[in-house]
Amino acid sequence: MLRQALHEFRISTRGRGLYEITREVSDWVSRAGLAGGLLTLHLRHTSASLLIQENADPDVRRDLESFFTRLAPDGDPLFVHTVEGADDMPSHVRAALTAVSLSIPVKDGKLALGTWQGIYIWEHRLAPHSRTITAHLVGE
Amino acid sequence: MLRQALHEFRISTRGRGLYEITREVSDWVSRAGLAGGLLTLHLRHTSASLLIQENADPDVRRDLESFFTRLAPDGDPLFVHTVEGADDMPSHVRAALTAVSLSIPVKDGKLALGTWQGIYIWEHRLAPHSRTITAHLVGE
Amino acid sequence: MLRQALHEFRISTRGRGLYEITREVSDWVSRAGLAGGLLTLHLRHTSASLLIQENADPDVRRDLESFFTRLAPDGDPLFVHTVEGADDMPSHVRAALTAVSLSIPVKDGKLALGTWQGIYIWEHRLAPHSRTITAHLVGE
Repeated sequence: MLRQALHEFRISTRGRGLYEITREVSDWVSRAGLAGGLLTLHLRHTSASLLIQENADPDVRRDLESFFTRLAPDGDPLFVHTVEGADDMPSHVRAALTAVSLSIPVKDGKLALGTWQGIYIWEHRLAPHSRTITAHLVGE
Repeated sequence: MLRQALHEFRISTRGRGLYEITREVSDWVSRAGLAGGLLTLHLRHTSASLLIQENADPDVRRDLESFFTRLAPDGDPLFVHTVEGADDMPSHVRAALTAVSLSIPVKDGKLALGTWQGIYIWEHRLAPHSRTITAHLVGE
Repeated sequence: MLRQALHEFRISTRGRGLYEITREVSDWVSRAGLAGGLLTLHLRHTSASLLIQENADPDVRRDLESFFTRLAPDGDPLFVHTVEGADDMPSHVRAALTAVSLSIPVKDGKLALGTWQGIYIWEHRLAPHSRTITAHLVGE
C-alpha cells in the first residue's frame, strides 16, 4: 500500500555557488525504506535554485557560474528593483531560468539518479543565506 | 490512506505579463482537506509558463519581463517560424527557458510556499488568451 | 485505492536535436489503466533535457535550436571545462536552462497534454547518445 513522507532540509550557504546535497537527500530517502516511489523537492525561495548537474569535474560548476554571470550580470542598468542590492534582481532572473522544484523516481530502494548526476542547491545571492527545501516522498 | 484529487483552472490573460494564481490554487488545496501531500500543476500550453516568484515588490515582475524581452526579443530575424506573429517564437523560447510544470508539497494542511513565493502564470503572447492548468493533489 | 508504476525508457539519439517521445510515453500510461493520476519523467543525464513544446510546425523546433545555439555557442572561450569537447559545456548550460524532470496529470485515462503539446527529449551533444528516462505513475 502506498504511503508518503515529508521532510524539511535546511542548508546554510556561504554565498553564490553550487552546494551539493545529494548525500543528505539520498540518506533520507533510504531511511524511508521504500522499494519504489517518487521524491519531489521544492525550494522555498526566489533567489536560489535546485539543480541536477554533473558531479564529476568541479570546472563544470565554475563554468555554469561564469555563464549565468555573463547572462544576468550584477548591477545590470536594465533593472529597477535594486533596493535589495545589485545581485538581487539577477538572482530572481537566475531562479526563473532554472528550477525551484525537481522530481526524481525511487527504484530498487534508492534515488534513480544518473551516474553523473548530483543534486545541488544553487545560491544566487552573494551573501550567505539559510535555505529551506521541503521534500515529499510517495511510494511503497 | 492516501487519496488524490484532480482539478482544472482556467485563467484569462490580458496579454503578456505575470498573473498571480496563488489564491485560487491555495483555496482548492485547502478544500481538499489533506494534512500532508503534494500539489502538481501543469500548464497545457507552449507559449506561456508557470513561475514561482517574489510576490512583494511589483518591480521584480517588471524587471523579469524586461530581462526576457531583451533575451528573446519579438521579431528576432533569427526565427523562421513567424506565421503566428512576431511574438510567437519568442514565446516558445520563453516557455522552454522557464517551466510548464511545478510541484509544491502540502504541509500542516496548506501549501508549503516560502514567505515571498507566489505562483504565477506567465503569459508570453501579446494578445489575451484563455489558459488551462491541470492540478493534481496526492496526500492524506 | 492508489497504486503506482515505474518504467524505464531508452532512447537512441542521432546527435543534437529534439526527438519526440509522446507516443511511447502515452502508450505506457494507457497500458497502466488509470482513470486519473500523475506521470513524472526524469532524465538521467546532464547534457540533454526533457521539453514539452509545440508538435505542429517543425520550424518551431528548428528555431528553438537556433536560439539555444546563439545563446550558448559551442567552443565559447568562456569555458574552462573543454576536455569532453567544444559542445559539452554548452550542453550542460542548456540542460540547466531547461528541465530534466516533468510532471503531467492523467485525466479520463490519458495524459492531460494540451492540443499542441508534445513531449521531447532534447539531445544537446553533437554525437549520438543512448539516453534513459525513468517514469513514475501514481493514480487509480
